[in-house]
Amino acid sequence: MVKINGHFAAMPQSYLFSEVGARAKAYADKHPDASIIKMGIGDVTRPLIPEVTDAMARAVDEMKHADTFRGYGPDAGYDFLRQAIVGYYDAMGVKLDIDEIFVGDGAKCDVANITDIFSDDNLVVIPDPVYPVYLDSNLMRGRKIRFLDGNLDNGFLPMPDGGEGDLYYLCSPNNPTGAVYNKEQLTQWVNFANERGAIILFDSAYECFISDPALPRSIFEIEGAETCAIEFNSFSKTAGFTGVRCGYTVVPKALVKDGVSLNKMWLRRQATKFNGVGYIVQRGAQAVFDNLPSIRQNIDYYMNNAALLSDLMRLKGWKFTGGVNSPYVWMKVPYDGMSSWEFFDLLLDKAHVIGTPGSGFGKCGEGYFRLTAFNTLENTTEAIARIKRCL
Amino acid sequence: MVKINGHFAAMPQSYLFSEVGARAKAYADKHPDASIIKMGIGDVTRPLIPEVTDAMARAVDEMKHADTFRGYGPDAGYDFLRQAIVGYYDAMGVKLDIDEIFVGDGAKCDVANITDIFSDDNLVVIPDPVYPVYLDSNLMRGRKIRFLDGNLDNGFLPMPDGGEGDLYYLCSPNNPTGAVYNKEQLTQWVNFANERGAIILFDSAYECFISDPALPRSIFEIEGAETCAIEFNSFSKTAGFTGVRCGYTVVPKALVKDGVSLNKMWLRRQATKFNGVGYIVQRGAQAVFDNLPSIRQNIDYYMNNAALLSDLMRLKGWKFTGGVNSPYVWMKVPYDGMSSWEFFDLLLDKAHVIGTPGSGFGKCGEGYFRLTAFNTLENTTEAIARIKRCL
Repeated sequence: MVKINGHFAAMPQSYLFSEVGARAKAYADKHPDASIIKMGIGDVTRPLIPEVTDAMARAVDEMKHADTFRGYGPDAGYDFLRQAIVGYYDAMGVKLDIDEIFVGDGAKCDVANITDIFSDDNLVVIPDPVYPVYLDSNLMRGRKIRFLDGNLDNGFLPMPDGGEGDLYYLCSPNNPTGAVYNKEQLTQWVNFANERGAIILFDSAYECFISDPALPRSIFEIEGAETCAIEFNSFSKTAGFTGVRCGYTVVPKALVKDGVSLNKMWLRRQATKFNGVGYIVQRGAQAVFDNLPSIRQNIDYYMNNAALLSDLMRLKGWKFTGGVNSPYVWMKVPYDGMSSWEFFDLLLDKAHVIGTPGSGFGKCGEGYFRLTAFNTLENTTEAIARIKRCL
Repeated sequence: MVKINGHFAAMPQSYLFSEVGARAKAYADKHPDASIIKMGIGDVTRPLIPEVTDAMARAVDEMKHADTFRGYGPDAGYDFLRQAIVGYYDAMGVKLDIDEIFVGDGAKCDVANITDIFSDDNLVVIPDPVYPVYLDSNLMRGRKIRFLDGNLDNGFLPMPDGGEGDLYYLCSPNNPTGAVYNKEQLTQWVNFANERGAIILFDSAYECFISDPALPRSIFEIEGAETCAIEFNSFSKTAGFTGVRCGYTVVPKALVKDGVSLNKMWLRRQATKFNGVGYIVQRGAQAVFDNLPSIRQNIDYYMNNAALLSDLMRLKGWKFTGGVNSPYVWMKVPYDGMSSWEFFDLLLDKAHVIGTPGSGFGKCGEGYFRLTAFNTLENTTEAIARIKRCL
């Protein structure tokens, strides 16, 4: 008799964004005339830049002819793309070897699948609030979890607290709070992990939104990180690849635990359970690096939205983090005792604006709410006007 | 102190196709003038059909404009593609609901990732020889494995043997042996699984190569399979998508174990650890179903190669399976006591032809060798001429 994975039952009932979608749909079905503005899910609205679609169109054409057709690619990605990523890091002052880079189909998949290379005996430490995938992918394997509380006092940037732990997730700029660790804080984290023999799984999917040159965009800017950290990055927010699917993971060759190279383990995992990213997609990703000024314009567009949302918070006198160096504005629900989901329903009903309930990101997110900068300027302006008017 | 997943150590040293590639490269480096023909890895050589690249080019163009840009898609795939898959099954006489279909980035990933939804306590039963991913993805989780021996006596089609087991992998047409279960055999398997409360993980990635209308192309052609089977299919070999990355998995809603819907568990797994297949790729996959006669021409091209390879086997008097209803020819090494890898080296050295050592597919594959029909007609003909001449 087959036995199912009973650990699934420990997972929260519904994946956050599915629940947001379901509530939004139920409301829209009941109120077909309501013009709903989505400031919730972190999806982008700007199209791909023409340089990227041109590169993909050329790749599509190559796939039509026998002499330029490409079948299976290298498991860890084509060298042309890995080399471009090496160059991107080089410009940040981080030296990487090409075989420390693994191209994947998105940071979400890689950050979830990395759980495969660790023992289920580890104590996993996760900031709260944070992107739910870290928690869910470990709950699915029945692992013990400990949370590090984020709050207005620590600026939603928890630091090592003296408690136990083996595997630490950090997300900076943080999703959902928009908070960013500075160099001193990350240095503390790296030193702590090296002393403990712990590993930091560092999600840098939002690094491109950092405009302050003093803030680290990669954990590998910190000395000693190569012996304790794995980094995950994505083209989703950088270049509008949410519907294209590409990201990459950096596993340093200096990262060795129990005498085993984690770089080789991840290669083995990917060679066994993954088959690489499509050629057309990788050509598009390469064009991202060849056209960073155009990419920058899209990021600036979103960061202008973030600035407008921040202005709204200040005008209303609402407490918030983010909005600068991050596309997220993380606000405290401005009504005493109101829950995140109650505010979700209120905002949807009064302003026809959808945000993301903070409680979906962890217990410490209760009473908070996330707005994103990823909508159009027109919709963002309209949402702000409605919130000004209705709340 | 972080603990790595110690089960990785139980996995065979190197992934089969990486080792084939490494040996081929070493030989080519030593013999730069040798014109090597690859009849090994199951990669295709025919380019995408123009109807598919046209659909992808249109989708690339949509991604360039804000009003047609697509961000995150549905976790389980766009309805336009899932509906086309429903229609494909309907033509086989199999009725499926759209939400029984999950679009993924290839059968390899899905067949490996499906391990997530089962307990590590299951006894996993795997035919030998077979595609190595079934074994490796379960060894990685430390699961107990039992093998079902394939050999010339049972035509490499092992049947239930009375032994214990919970989770059964079947691959038909089989990779690497080309053997195909008939309806009576699959009916025995389905009845056995239903009596036992076992699950059959059915890999049908090569179903499109079946030309005999009496042979089942889907396990769901068998009555009762919907309560005991999950099926994996792929566009890789059907439509040359090895470098595009798309496949799909069918999890019937009637498949319920321990009171839990496996359809819902897989949806949860995918929503948590996967982010869907890119829009451009899904439009390409849709065009496959809209243009099956063109796709058929590519399949016929490969099956002509398979027929030529079968003729070679008969001419030489070599024992083999496959070559019909399958793109693989599985031959017994024709020299007494010679191992699969020895024959690999011999064939490479004498004929400059690369095949796949049967021992890479399991203990029962030792002394066998796989040739594939996926090269060009010219290369296949040349490889056959060389083998005729040199061996």
